[in-house]
Amino acid sequence: MPSYKLTYFFFRGLGEPIRLLFHLAGVQFEEVRMNPDQTWLDIKDSTPMKQLPVLNIDGFELPQSGAILRYLARKFGFAGKTPEEEAWVDAVHDLFKDFLAEFKKFAAERRSGKSAEEVEKFRSEFFLPARNTYFNILNGLLEKSNSGFLIGSDITFADLVVVDNLLTLKNYGLFDESEFTKLAALREKVNSYPGIKEYIAKRPVTEY
Amino acid sequence: MPSYKLTYFFFRGLGEPIRLLFHLAGVQFEEVRMNPDQTWLDIKDSTPMKQLPVLNIDGFELPQSGAILRYLARKFGFAGKTPEEEAWVDAVHDLFKDFLAEFKKFAAERRSGKSAEEVEKFRSEFFLPARNTYFNILNGLLEKSNSGFLIGSDITFADLVVVDNLLTLKNYGLFDESEFTKLAALREKVNSYPGIKEYIAKRPVTEY
Repeated sequence: MPSYKLTYFFFRGLGEPIRLLFHLAGVQFEEVRMNPDQTWLDIKDSTPMKQLPVLNIDGFELPQSGAILRYLARKFGFAGKTPEEEAWVDAVHDLFKDFLAEFKKFAAERRSGKSAEEVEKFRSEFFLPARNTYFNILNGLLEKSNSGFLIGSDITFADLVVVDNLLTLKNYGLFDESEFTKLAALREKVNSYPGIKEYIAKRPVTEY
Repeated sequence: MPSYKLTYFFFRGLGEPIRLLFHLAGVQFEEVRMNPDQTWLDIKDSTPMKQLPVLNIDGFELPQSGAILRYLARKFGFAGKTPEEEAWVDAVHDLFKDFLAEFKKFAAERRSGKSAEEVEKFRSEFFLPARNTYFNILNGLLEKSNSGFLIGSDITFADLVVVDNLLTLKNYGLFDESEFTKLAALREKVNSYPGIKEYIAKRPVTEY
């Protein structure tokens, strides 16, 4: 069994779906969670793409959360069962990344010091339409699904990225379970999956 | 041989690396290039993720340029030769997408109607540092490369996305071959590859 080391910040962010995947697969990994007092700038230049997460596998370094997730998910069996399922898992991951870019714009707006009115205007005019498009596409996939997961007959890394982000959206007041019941059911299903349930119960609590 | 149909806009954009991949592999595909007078909004809701490109393979529809590229590249043999090479090809593609988000911000700034001074300030303070980080990472990969391609011993879809974007950057005055000689050499190498060379000579010329 290779030796895995995952380096990321202390919060969930783009590192959490990778952590969830290790726990789902029941595979041991060393974890470096950089605390706010550790100086990221000291190690930034030594990372392959000047960013985190970075996965180290017996000395082989791999950057980029999407590349890491796919690499591990294919090894562990959570990337889809056919080339076509794998492609759709990738497509949902890409959709999530596109949406995340919109969410980050909203988060930046909220942090910007602008008035509550301006932030609300941005939320209702720009962010919510993007969120609704994203949720509607995910909802359509769940309506077609026989398993209750987004793609195919079992959990994949696409479910992990979507569900982890739902918690962040909930913390920001942007996801209401009673309004989006299929997504809420997916979240419940993923969060009670063996391996994930135990991890979530004891992990550090962070807003994002 | 399956029957492939690629639907995208008339310009290069996120569709071009997929077109290049088909030409590189010498695989026939039907192409729908939506012209400016065609109403994208009429077909938008019928696409799986309300966006283009969409690849149709004997009725199986796949959205998202990254998912399409990876799916085809794995079929055609341009996705990397080992799981580790495949992961790094994915990581470079993700790096490109991250950079593209920065480039789009600059392009939006240029279109915004702001003064030349403001656009130049954005270019020098925000865009160029992001471009330099991106170019430096790519340059580091090329310095380590024995093949002259970004990852492994032969051309992959990572080379295609990077090289096609270099043309766009050049058209925007943001890529100077004499300043970035390794990237210029990669571009020359990819653009003279059999299959690609012939296609590029006859394709429609668009700014992006």
